[in-house]
Amino acid sequence: MEQRSQLVLFKTSGAPTFIVDCKSKGSDIPQLGDDESYSLEVTPQEITLKSNTVVGAIRGLETLVQLVTPTQNGYVLPAVTIKDQPRFPWRGLHIDVSRHFQPIEVLKRNIDAMAAAKMNVFHWHLTDDQGFRIESKIFPKLQGMGSDGLFYTQDEAKDLIAYAADRGIRVLPEFDMPGHTTAWMVGYPDLASAPGPYEIERHFGIFDPTMGEMAKLFPDEYIHIGGDENNGKQWSSNPAIQAFMKKKGIASNVDLQTYFSQRVLALVNKHGKKMVGWDEVLAPGLSKDVVVQSWRGATALDQGAKDGYNMILSQPYYFDAMFPASRHYLADPVPANTPLTPEQQKHVLGGEACMWGEVVTPQNIDSRIWPRNLAIAERFWSPQSVNDVNDYYRRENIVSPQLELVGLKHLSSVDGMVRAASGSAEIAPAVATLVKYVEPYMLWIRERDRSKSPTQLWSLTSLEDAVNTDQPAGREIAANVDRLLNDPSFNAGSADLQSAFNELAPLDKTYAAAAAGNPNLDKATPRAQDLANLGRAGLEALNFIKQNQPVPQTWLADKLALIDRANQPTAMLRIAWLDSFRRLAYIAAYRSSYSTMTPDQWKAKVIADSTPKRDRE
Amino acid sequence: MEQRSQLVLFKTSGAPTFIVDCKSKGSDIPQLGDDESYSLEVTPQEITLKSNTVVGAIRGLETLVQLVTPTQNGYVLPAVTIKDQPRFPWRGLHIDVSRHFQPIEVLKRNIDAMAAAKMNVFHWHLTDDQGFRIESKIFPKLQGMGSDGLFYTQDEAKDLIAYAADRGIRVLPEFDMPGHTTAWMVGYPDLASAPGPYEIERHFGIFDPTMGEMAKLFPDEYIHIGGDENNGKQWSSNPAIQAFMKKKGIASNVDLQTYFSQRVLALVNKHGKKMVGWDEVLAPGLSKDVVVQSWRGATALDQGAKDGYNMILSQPYYFDAMFPASRHYLADPVPANTPLTPEQQKHVLGGEACMWGEVVTPQNIDSRIWPRNLAIAERFWSPQSVNDVNDYYRRENIVSPQLELVGLKHLSSVDGMVRAASGSAEIAPAVATLVKYVEPYMLWIRERDRSKSPTQLWSLTSLEDAVNTDQPAGREIAANVDRLLNDPSFNAGSADLQSAFNELAPLDKTYAAAAAGNPNLDKATPRAQDLANLGRAGLEALNFIKQNQPVPQTWLADKLALIDRANQPTAMLRIAWLDSFRRLAYIAAYRSSYSTMTPDQWKAKVIADSTPKRDRE
Repeated sequence: MEQRSQLVLFKTSGAPTFIVDCKSKGSDIPQLGDDESYSLEVTPQEITLKSNTVVGAIRGLETLVQLVTPTQNGYVLPAVTIKDQPRFPWRGLHIDVSRHFQPIEVLKRNIDAMAAAKMNVFHWHLTDDQGFRIESKIFPKLQGMGSDGLFYTQDEAKDLIAYAADRGIRVLPEFDMPGHTTAWMVGYPDLASAPGPYEIERHFGIFDPTMGEMAKLFPDEYIHIGGDENNGKQWSSNPAIQAFMKKKGIASNVDLQTYFSQRVLALVNKHGKKMVGWDEVLAPGLSKDVVVQSWRGATALDQGAKDGYNMILSQPYYFDAMFPASRHYLADPVPANTPLTPEQQKHVLGGEACMWGEVVTPQNIDSRIWPRNLAIAERFWSPQSVNDVNDYYRRENIVSPQLELVGLKHLSSVDGMVRAASGSAEIAPAVATLVKYVEPYMLWIRERDRSKSPTQLWSLTSLEDAVNTDQPAGREIAANVDRLLNDPSFNAGSADLQSAFNELAPLDKTYAAAAAGNPNLDKATPRAQDLANLGRAGLEALNFIKQNQPVPQTWLADKLALIDRANQPTAMLRIAWLDSFRRLAYIAAYRSSYSTMTPDQWKAKVIADSTPKRDRE
Repeated sequence: MEQRSQLVLFKTSGAPTFIVDCKSKGSDIPQLGDDESYSLEVTPQEITLKSNTVVGAIRGLETLVQLVTPTQNGYVLPAVTIKDQPRFPWRGLHIDVSRHFQPIEVLKRNIDAMAAAKMNVFHWHLTDDQGFRIESKIFPKLQGMGSDGLFYTQDEAKDLIAYAADRGIRVLPEFDMPGHTTAWMVGYPDLASAPGPYEIERHFGIFDPTMGEMAKLFPDEYIHIGGDENNGKQWSSNPAIQAFMKKKGIASNVDLQTYFSQRVLALVNKHGKKMVGWDEVLAPGLSKDVVVQSWRGATALDQGAKDGYNMILSQPYYFDAMFPASRHYLADPVPANTPLTPEQQKHVLGGEACMWGEVVTPQNIDSRIWPRNLAIAERFWSPQSVNDVNDYYRRENIVSPQLELVGLKHLSSVDGMVRAASGSAEIAPAVATLVKYVEPYMLWIRERDRSKSPTQLWSLTSLEDAVNTDQPAGREIAANVDRLLNDPSFNAGSADLQSAFNELAPLDKTYAAAAAGNPNLDKATPRAQDLANLGRAGLEALNFIKQNQPVPQTWLADKLALIDRANQPTAMLRIAWLDSFRRLAYIAAYRSSYSTMTPDQWKAKVIADSTPKRDRE
């Protein structure tokens, strides 16, 4: 029987009517496969939002809110007709709260932003080596000794689940095992070190009741059991485990992991849940009920789908890789050239963006996830054919500040942290300029540099923790170099480039002056020197190009050396536009040979010679 | 018996020991008169924090945190010896959540900042004409119909009270009556309009049980019953009330208010509480138990103290007046020239800063309270003799960004709201310049301008809602004009002024270009024109001064006319440095007469002629 409900809002005389026409309630709590479609029509007389379910109406309301434009005389809606539905049913954001704890309000504001971006799975990475973050009432030492006091009570978890459900978002809890379980062992050390041939069995003495407790706490039909990155070293060196394997006839660590996964799967099923695991759980004989999350990327995803498993893609959606949004945006779980048959494609349920917690704090986590997550959310929701990067960035620029009104701090946290590092409510102009032109390095380069420090105790308050990635100023340099390369009169883009280089050229002196006496800022002084060098070299290049004048003999080599220096991870502040800058140097060096070949030949030569080898391999 | 507890932290070999030596627990929850004193000693070997109570230790810990300086190689503490205690026992922040509701997280982050500033009373203005914001279980229509659904549950209130208590902060609830009670009447209209001679008595049919309910909910020994700004008009025009007054022999509305206050006081006492009220409750015969909060200012405060009442000062600590921090800082509840005897001075318990809610939202409330509340908090805590404004600002500049790490958004909200108004993640440089040099007007000027709009439905998303008051750029202009005036060679400050004016001079064109097509920004285009005019006039003035050249005949009159135009509330964006700019114009105009009199005479003439009349009246 139809439970249609019609809600009429704002019914005042003369004002347009707002009708929400929702055919049925839908699932009690959000579930995989919910009907999220809606249609929206705005006319001067009426706003009509139609959906089959409440969650569909929620998606439509988010669209409606994004259409509202404030003006001096009030809020305005454009007249539109929209029919909309998601491409993939599983559109997730994974947040690791183990390596650095994130308070509930951080999660709530990110869930609000997920709802704005129409994502529907919050994957809560609750346990890892660095912390067991959820209260167990059965084994209280799990959080009591494995979290430094930073954990969520069961009441807080229930509240968050309800909060997410109100926004049409599932909460998928992850209890990562058998690797990444150091935090479990702190309170219950015999899990890890007890003698005797049944060590692995003993794990289940705690895993089983814990899983039962968590299965009751989290209403989603799925539980994520991790299963990733167990390197097996401890297994190989543990005589008890070797004895166990021998007794059970288990030939290798991979087989032992499979044995473990099967046991965990049985547990998960026993408690009425389906299982999700990372790539490693996928071994011959694994039940087709298990959903496999691929951190290994498209090839592993495709293979899983071919083998009939339901798959979700998470690579290249790792935020700590510090990729630009464009790269995320163009990475399609089922690209146009997919090797999968239509039937196999149905096994690709969608994907999840991943925020790992090594170097994120409540201060900067928003800026690591957003606005780039907008690109990923759109990739999961919209058709394959919606893939114009420039148009994406145009819309990102509009929606991104709206997300701060939802509560995110992804834009404002940058200045907040720069102020804190400066120890001053005012940011010196030279510091502001540096911050505009640099980005953080990807996680593994930071880890390489600071390998001597214990991760969780790093003070994450430096400029590298403050600055955002995929910065507009860097993208504009790239776009302007591209314009210049494609303009036969060598003019397009040059005025904007000149203004950027003029801003950078004096930075060695002005930044050093601003940073004097402040070690937080002073650490970046060599980077400011690099930026100033680039600014001056850029002005030289523009001048040679404008004058159509050959560069001095060693000019190009000098500039390439300078670019190489700027490419070192000085102060852990990355200059993301060096490839474009290198191209500009080649344009300048080759300018005078432009008339000696066809424009296409010349352009091809510039591109070929200026592209670093790593991109051509 | 002494319950001394000694806590030793960070005891790792080689590292300094941290000893918290706390003599006794102190009050179960924070109370008026708690011992908040502490001493702190930091040496290379040891940190020792000593206090008589836990709340004293909390105050000392806040000092310790503020001493921590992050450096490239870790956190550093200076070696210090501090003995500290508050000057006044009542150091409050009043937040009106009735006119605009503020979610719990907004209150919590402000309570965190209060703790950082060592304030100890959170005055929660829960009811007013525009909303009844606390759940009553006895009369649920109070919040049910009087809050648009925006109210705190009793559980949330309990949680907030505990949160504040953990930080040594009392929670003082206010139920404002008999004026400001429109919100009560929405659910229970017969309170306001029932016929018959006992209307006022009928109020108590709801006030009494509500007061009882709230007295149980809020553990503080005080309840604030408001009592302010009842204009008596409705009483005068209500025949039932007139009949009641005649019957009781009450001669005037003032007497009726006194009658009402006495009845409410009896109620408050009956429920085991002491009463706080605004100035109006102070009438002959009022019990000396009542604490009177003075919004009328120092004269009323002094009179109350002379009459033996315990008083707290709230004027001039109204944030919506948009006074600079310096004015708050220098306003002392018991100034050096106080007319009070030492015995009478004891009746001044302290003061409260007031954040009224007419034009504040969760987005901008932090920037309205902070950093200026630091000045007020220090005035209430520190000795009278600590009153160097420049040193206050030096320290404000350091502590203010630290408060953002505590969770406040007072600095970052500005750019966040400017981005939202711009509809872009990037703020155009011309918009950033405008924002740097303008401030919001005080509330009553805004209300005059927008008197036709219903207050609670104003969209508070304009630049005037974004920009902060007491801006450093304006203060720097003032300081530099002062330097110039006092330099016989007419050079000091002029380079900085020139750089500011150079920034402003092109603003008419650049701002108009940035604002084109965006009504939110375009509204401020005439103000950008004013700023550009001032910038160009400033450059002219500096040039005349430098060249020691007489200004053209109508130059000064022209500039004064220009300053008058800039003094209009265009776009509701105030130029706070016009008095200094006027002084600069006079310096330029009088420069050539410098040699005709003594320097002191000349300076006196500049000051006399350039000071606007309102300051000399």
